[in-house]
Amino acid sequence: MAEIQWHKLGAYLKETQILGSIQSTLYWDQNTGMPKRGASWRSEQLTYIAKILHKRNSSEKFSDLIRAAQDELLNSAENSESQVLIQSKKRNIELLIKEFNRQKNLDPKLVEALAKAKSKGYESWQEAKRKSNFKIFLPFFDELIKLRIEEAKQITDKYRPWETLAQPFEPDITLEWLNKVFKPLKETIPYLLGDLNESEKTHWDLSVQSQQNLCSKLLDEFGRDEDMVVVAKSPHPFSITLGPEDYRITTRVVEGEPFSSFLATAHEWGHSIYEQGLPSQSHQWFAWPLGQATSMGVHESQSLFWENRIVKSKSFSKRFFKHFAYEGCPLNNHLELWKSINHLKAGLNRVEADELSYGLHILIRTELEIDLIEGGLEPKDIPSEWNKKYEELLGIRPSNDAEGCLQDVHWSEGAFGYFPSYLLGHLISAQISSQMENEIGLIDNLVENGEYEKIISWLKNNIHNYGRSVNSMELVRNVTREELTPNYFLNHLKSKIKDFC
Amino acid sequence: MAEIQWHKLGAYLKETQILGSIQSTLYWDQNTGMPKRGASWRSEQLTYIAKILHKRNSSEKFSDLIRAAQDELLNSAENSESQVLIQSKKRNIELLIKEFNRQKNLDPKLVEALAKAKSKGYESWQEAKRKSNFKIFLPFFDELIKLRIEEAKQITDKYRPWETLAQPFEPDITLEWLNKVFKPLKETIPYLLGDLNESEKTHWDLSVQSQQNLCSKLLDEFGRDEDMVVVAKSPHPFSITLGPEDYRITTRVVEGEPFSSFLATAHEWGHSIYEQGLPSQSHQWFAWPLGQATSMGVHESQSLFWENRIVKSKSFSKRFFKHFAYEGCPLNNHLELWKSINHLKAGLNRVEADELSYGLHILIRTELEIDLIEGGLEPKDIPSEWNKKYEELLGIRPSNDAEGCLQDVHWSEGAFGYFPSYLLGHLISAQISSQMENEIGLIDNLVENGEYEKIISWLKNNIHNYGRSVNSMELVRNVTREELTPNYFLNHLKSKIKDFC
Repeated sequence: MAEIQWHKLGAYLKETQILGSIQSTLYWDQNTGMPKRGASWRSEQLTYIAKILHKRNSSEKFSDLIRAAQDELLNSAENSESQVLIQSKKRNIELLIKEFNRQKNLDPKLVEALAKAKSKGYESWQEAKRKSNFKIFLPFFDELIKLRIEEAKQITDKYRPWETLAQPFEPDITLEWLNKVFKPLKETIPYLLGDLNESEKTHWDLSVQSQQNLCSKLLDEFGRDEDMVVVAKSPHPFSITLGPEDYRITTRVVEGEPFSSFLATAHEWGHSIYEQGLPSQSHQWFAWPLGQATSMGVHESQSLFWENRIVKSKSFSKRFFKHFAYEGCPLNNHLELWKSINHLKAGLNRVEADELSYGLHILIRTELEIDLIEGGLEPKDIPSEWNKKYEELLGIRPSNDAEGCLQDVHWSEGAFGYFPSYLLGHLISAQISSQMENEIGLIDNLVENGEYEKIISWLKNNIHNYGRSVNSMELVRNVTREELTPNYFLNHLKSKIKDFC
Repeated sequence: MAEIQWHKLGAYLKETQILGSIQSTLYWDQNTGMPKRGASWRSEQLTYIAKILHKRNSSEKFSDLIRAAQDELLNSAENSESQVLIQSKKRNIELLIKEFNRQKNLDPKLVEALAKAKSKGYESWQEAKRKSNFKIFLPFFDELIKLRIEEAKQITDKYRPWETLAQPFEPDITLEWLNKVFKPLKETIPYLLGDLNESEKTHWDLSVQSQQNLCSKLLDEFGRDEDMVVVAKSPHPFSITLGPEDYRITTRVVEGEPFSSFLATAHEWGHSIYEQGLPSQSHQWFAWPLGQATSMGVHESQSLFWENRIVKSKSFSKRFFKHFAYEGCPLNNHLELWKSINHLKAGLNRVEADELSYGLHILIRTELEIDLIEGGLEPKDIPSEWNKKYEELLGIRPSNDAEGCLQDVHWSEGAFGYFPSYLLGHLISAQISSQMENEIGLIDNLVENGEYEKIISWLKNNIHNYGRSVNSMELVRNVTREELTPNYFLNHLKSKIKDFC
């Protein structure tokens, strides 16, 4: 089969990929190494790359290349090539067209303004958080919201603006569907929280060095390849892929939270191992959409799986207690470690939250940002609305903006529509875990025997390898033979509470 | 005065600057953070940027912009604008034309091949050095040399290829001039070395943490702004500017060499403070040639000044002894510290070399690379020739390639013509120091009183601020009222030896 057009399109996509990975490298450096005063020039660099990328992704030339490859594919579909290959090629083209249609309607001036606003937003958020003063962030936040609504409107009028902004993270998401999936959670979790026998957390901590040692041991235990996966520190933990064999993870040490960096490392490892398992390395689809993650909900399901199903399991505490003891952890045995790492108590911080209250943190953010984008809520009212909702749902009230509405980085970069992915991730992780246990045995047993490879291999074969060849909800259905439901997650929570009391 | 064309050219240059600084950021990350297996994709990114940069720097459009700005300048030269401003504008145009002429003759294919070869060269050099096996590096080295000779030939036939390759580092350098300046050094230094009462070095070391603490204290002492200058570790220390307010320094800890990271930090600080003093920040010339360093010889003079004139001075040892003692250094007093940090003894390693034998390390490299480029020497013979010269000039012989011809990074990236800058830097530093002492008093007194600001301010006003408005040799003449001569450096060496014995 002639593949001239196909390869031309591939070469074009590869250049886009190179530029995209340069953008990611600048972002990585911005968060892990750049001095404070470098921010303004970095913003110029990122704006420049965003401009070129948008130009490439919405150019006449790109559109022509896609069309030519599509024609070539249709004309040759009759011949000897395998149906599987043809199907995946078709899916690639379909996804490219979808993405192209998103980009082509955007005014290049808006794209440039957005890149600048994201950079300024991030910068002002950092200062606002440091000084715990939302007002410093407000004008930039306001601008970001306006620009993103404008973006959504330029992209399509088929969906509501919030839906349009959320779809790059979760394809086809709608407000109606989300409401249906989240409603049982909002109804149930506050009651579960109320049922808890509140136990006070015992206060202890580990030195920065000890926490680093434990994170290293954790990654060794999971089988990290040091030549491919690098760890650094950043204000907000994240995971990013900078090339087909270049994976980066960050973590941070939080005073008084001895598990914080450890759980963040497990979480980011989950993201990274998903990316490592995508059909992108040494594979013909590299640079093509099928080599990408299918949705951020699935991405989060992978990180939450390692954080909550693996590291918070009883058998993991049993395996790892000796390392904690060695580093000077004052707990007496692995059961105490398990209780401590699973401590269930509503707090103000999302990243440090337990599995039970985590969902509420997300529900609050989701409701607020939908309200912001869909017009009911003024940005200036965020602090008071935030605090009110925390009081209502979690029974606690932030004493300042830093521990309240300024805690997360997402909005500072204009990332609306992302938060639900975390909670969808919890649901997907729970539903998938159940299926995994049906197929290869209880996670507790696997962890007890250190069979991480078996777990990774199952995830690879059932989730990672699919890339974007199927949508997230289709993936869940294929793997678990059921639509996504909150039931597995709620059952998991209930059984944990029972275990705990 | 109408400045329409001038501003258009400025906007073009700024975009080039953005791209160049992105390239530098990728380079920084490659050396400080990237996992090993990221190398191949990084090479693709760097090749891509090199291609765009070359295209921009040799495009018809750029040429037209320069010409239009030049015309505008000539037509308006009569009117009210100050002569100083017009002169600097003319100088900017002159430098742009010179650089453009270098670029325009290059075949884009060669540019791409060179970027790839540099990346592969660096990669294979790392492996070759680790395994101490020059043969691993040889084929890539061979390719690099061929490509760089080809490059030199494409640029001009007015100069010998080595001269053409060296001129971006040292404008107008010729083999004849270099030979004249270096000859007295080659004749004198081996004798000075012979005069030494060889004292054995006492062996001691400091922990990695202690060395890091000392480096931090050193930078604090010098007045580093932490919001603008960041320090990291890399296999080979370097300094790089990533934006008008974003300066990076690297250092490394060498086992058994307790001063290595400390001296490297002082050295890289010198580079960085030069860049910080260039007329590039908040200045109309940013992105214009006048905002750049005038030559690598001058650059090295600044780093060597801080390393050798400041940190190796008696009064610095007096000031800093307490910090070394605190970190567990076993020396008994500041005089012992001074003797130890100034220990004069021919060794195999350039970076760890004392001031006396340093020049010989450079003379050897300079002779070898001139021979390589000008055709007398086969790349495969480098290890044996290298070892022979070390035996002849320094009286010692490397026992393997890692401690011999593979020790430096420069050739691995095809940087021929750079090494002489180090030795020119020594000469310039000595000559400038003498003038500085005439004007603001003995360095020893300034350091004793911690008057670093006074030193920095003198350097800024007499060297840094000039950027590329004058050539290096013109700068030396302006500041010291004398042509560059090896005499100041040789006198400095002789007086140190006297002090020492």
